[in-house]
Amino acid sequence: MVSPSLKSPRSCKCVATAPSETIAYKTKVPRNSNMAKLQAGYLFPEIARRRSAHLLKYPDAQVISLGIGDTTEPIPEVITSAMAMRSHSLSTLEGYSGYGAEQGDKKLRAAIASTFYGDLGIDEADIFVSDGAKCDISRLQLLFGSNATIAVQDPSYPVRGIPRIPLTFVHTCTVMATKEEKAYVDSSVIMGQTGLYQKDIEKFGKIEYMRCTPENGFFPDLSTISRTDVIFFCSPNNPTGSTASREQLTQLVQFARDNGSIIVFDSAYAMYISDDSPRSIFEIPGAKEVAMEVSSFSKYAGFTGVRLGWTAIPKELLYSDGFPIAKDFNRIVCTCFNGASNIVQAGGLACLSAEGLEAMRSVVGYYRENTKIIVDTFTSLGFKVYGGKNAPYVWVHFPGRSSWDVFAEILEKTHIVTTPGSGFGPAGDGFIRVSAFGHRENVIEASRRFKQLYK
Amino acid sequence: MVSPSLKSPRSCKCVATAPSETIAYKTKVPRNSNMAKLQAGYLFPEIARRRSAHLLKYPDAQVISLGIGDTTEPIPEVITSAMAMRSHSLSTLEGYSGYGAEQGDKKLRAAIASTFYGDLGIDEADIFVSDGAKCDISRLQLLFGSNATIAVQDPSYPVRGIPRIPLTFVHTCTVMATKEEKAYVDSSVIMGQTGLYQKDIEKFGKIEYMRCTPENGFFPDLSTISRTDVIFFCSPNNPTGSTASREQLTQLVQFARDNGSIIVFDSAYAMYISDDSPRSIFEIPGAKEVAMEVSSFSKYAGFTGVRLGWTAIPKELLYSDGFPIAKDFNRIVCTCFNGASNIVQAGGLACLSAEGLEAMRSVVGYYRENTKIIVDTFTSLGFKVYGGKNAPYVWVHFPGRSSWDVFAEILEKTHIVTTPGSGFGPAGDGFIRVSAFGHRENVIEASRRFKQLYK
Repeated sequence: MVSPSLKSPRSCKCVATAPSETIAYKTKVPRNSNMAKLQAGYLFPEIARRRSAHLLKYPDAQVISLGIGDTTEPIPEVITSAMAMRSHSLSTLEGYSGYGAEQGDKKLRAAIASTFYGDLGIDEADIFVSDGAKCDISRLQLLFGSNATIAVQDPSYPVRGIPRIPLTFVHTCTVMATKEEKAYVDSSVIMGQTGLYQKDIEKFGKIEYMRCTPENGFFPDLSTISRTDVIFFCSPNNPTGSTASREQLTQLVQFARDNGSIIVFDSAYAMYISDDSPRSIFEIPGAKEVAMEVSSFSKYAGFTGVRLGWTAIPKELLYSDGFPIAKDFNRIVCTCFNGASNIVQAGGLACLSAEGLEAMRSVVGYYRENTKIIVDTFTSLGFKVYGGKNAPYVWVHFPGRSSWDVFAEILEKTHIVTTPGSGFGPAGDGFIRVSAFGHRENVIEASRRFKQLYK
Repeated sequence: MVSPSLKSPRSCKCVATAPSETIAYKTKVPRNSNMAKLQAGYLFPEIARRRSAHLLKYPDAQVISLGIGDTTEPIPEVITSAMAMRSHSLSTLEGYSGYGAEQGDKKLRAAIASTFYGDLGIDEADIFVSDGAKCDISRLQLLFGSNATIAVQDPSYPVRGIPRIPLTFVHTCTVMATKEEKAYVDSSVIMGQTGLYQKDIEKFGKIEYMRCTPENGFFPDLSTISRTDVIFFCSPNNPTGSTASREQLTQLVQFARDNGSIIVFDSAYAMYISDDSPRSIFEIPGAKEVAMEVSSFSKYAGFTGVRLGWTAIPKELLYSDGFPIAKDFNRIVCTCFNGASNIVQAGGLACLSAEGLEAMRSVVGYYRENTKIIVDTFTSLGFKVYGGKNAPYVWVHFPGRSSWDVFAEILEKTHIVTTPGSGFGPAGDGFIRVSAFGHRENVIEASRRFKQLYK
């Protein structure tokens, strides 16, 4: 699909077009063949297309979106005030600062280490502050290089960087992409680690897909998984909302140790954990020698647009030749990044003050309450519901039905946008994902409509 | 050199060490061989080592640094107020926003297009807002892929992402990297585009180095340059301060058209141009079919720590198969980036208001005045001085002398840190770079000391 954003509004037809026949000049630079392997997004554009069609059919419908995992609640003032103050101080001689350390402000690195890793043996020097987990995943792929092999959970996002077409699509042809996904797969494709996309099985060649379903408690049967250099593992998980237990993560770490693999543990939803599931992979003994952790302030403080995250790489994590992986990542960060914004880092530091932590817990608590409403709604209606306990995503089972049929039914009858599970991979069919990010009144209204539909 | 930041302060010896013999476990993941090709930085660590030694010898010396190209002057209030206001608004229901477009806020893209490209045929849709030029250079390398061939100016930074060791080095072992360089070469090495580093000629294999010296007016003799897929070209130039004329850029564009190459034009210092040299490559007819442009707010508004830049990719720029390059870059940006911080983008928009533009011109004017003082100083002392007119860098010629000897002489006798030209590449020997970023009183004092030394 041709991205309409690249065309002038005049000529925009919002449909795929062959290259114009009036091309005056082409360079002699061949297109990077890895880019050609990427699949045009189909999940979110299709959702947007259906939503637009729905709005044309019901122009007065009050559509509620529980589809995208984007935060909706204001950032606590203790945090925004710190950013405003840092911003003002940049206008003073004493407060001004230029380039900061690429790895992040020393104080922020120390605060992240002590807040999230307490006595787990991760210290300030192991923390690399980022402009978000998605960005660091891409830098990690650069680190691993094109010969690395990777494994990902299924469901996850088989096709990434998918354009999301907003409600105004019909009029403006603006195309936006989905933001919440860490681009494990697409960044791997771009790096040249994968084979071609195999349409029949909806998978890329050379990627190991780890099937996660209710049957295996959303934890892969590791005895069936081939060794890869890198294992991307997200817990609490997006989209299933499931959280790996201590025992499961111990298995995962043992699996990585047996294979000499590196786990890239995505803990972006760890603050949503309400039981004693591990919040960090480093809670598992032996993990520091086989794992790194990627995380973010996005879903804790509402920083999806503010941009701040981090990656923790223990000094014990070594390549086969004994070279420390953190040392190469340091070089990547220094070459390909210039540090998160100093203003934003001041916000991160405020997040980790006593008052800031309390404020973040309150934000998380709000979405958690939303999640409970959604879980209770579907449970009371007799559905099998997964996730939700430790994550802001609810994974609702509609056995024997196609995800897209359920999506269509819900949209048609309730004006609610959800996400069809099959869009996240073959193992997701028969499910829909309901996101708990939304204003409370919308979630309550959505609950009312779901109850009316499935009563 | 082992990065001391990765070692605990206890064990830090600030020297290269072999991997510890007490290694308990190594993964079976081989190190990315491209990372192994990177050279340990020698320029800035060596400068820092000498500065530290100097401070040990003269503990009371008032050292002035004109070495690093980092901004020192406060950001105008019209800009920081806008960022503070945006920050505060994120604490309100009406003002809050989550994920923004990866390509940047529509208004900011439009303002960049109209401010910097006026009637040059670059519009909003061609602009990708970034967190800085260095970061976008790395994303561009991902775009081009490992089979692309590149050309760079010599002098430029032959070795990038070089650790800069601050004054506190001796005590804290903190290592910071230099920030000002766009990592053309190192990012190319990381992508696997280059051969090995050839120590004897101080060059990487498979990179085309374009020699720029006073003899050729700091513009390469294109008849001697081999075709490459990509030509990185920075004008006004860092480190030489030279600016390519309209005629020279017309030659460059013709060269690219003849070869079917892509010019990546780095215009991060364009606002420093005081004559009628082109501020954008797109001022050259035919450039839109062979060039893209990378730029930044860093040196205009003092945003080196705030982080904001952009890349302009015309829709006319096509791969050999006719596929639009901007379309693939859009995919890269959506996969590997999540947009610049919304707070920072509000600052960018304020920069481009009438008042903001005036304020930026005043910041640029301040450093320009510094530059004039430095140029006048060396000119009055009889030196051949290059650059400075259209760039905040002054390139002073010491014919027949080694750059490092001159550096040492200046440091020893004036306590001023400069940068030895040979550190930027073989063509830089016999020069020192004097940066005009600094407080006025320091520049005046430096001028006084230079005059005393070379009177």
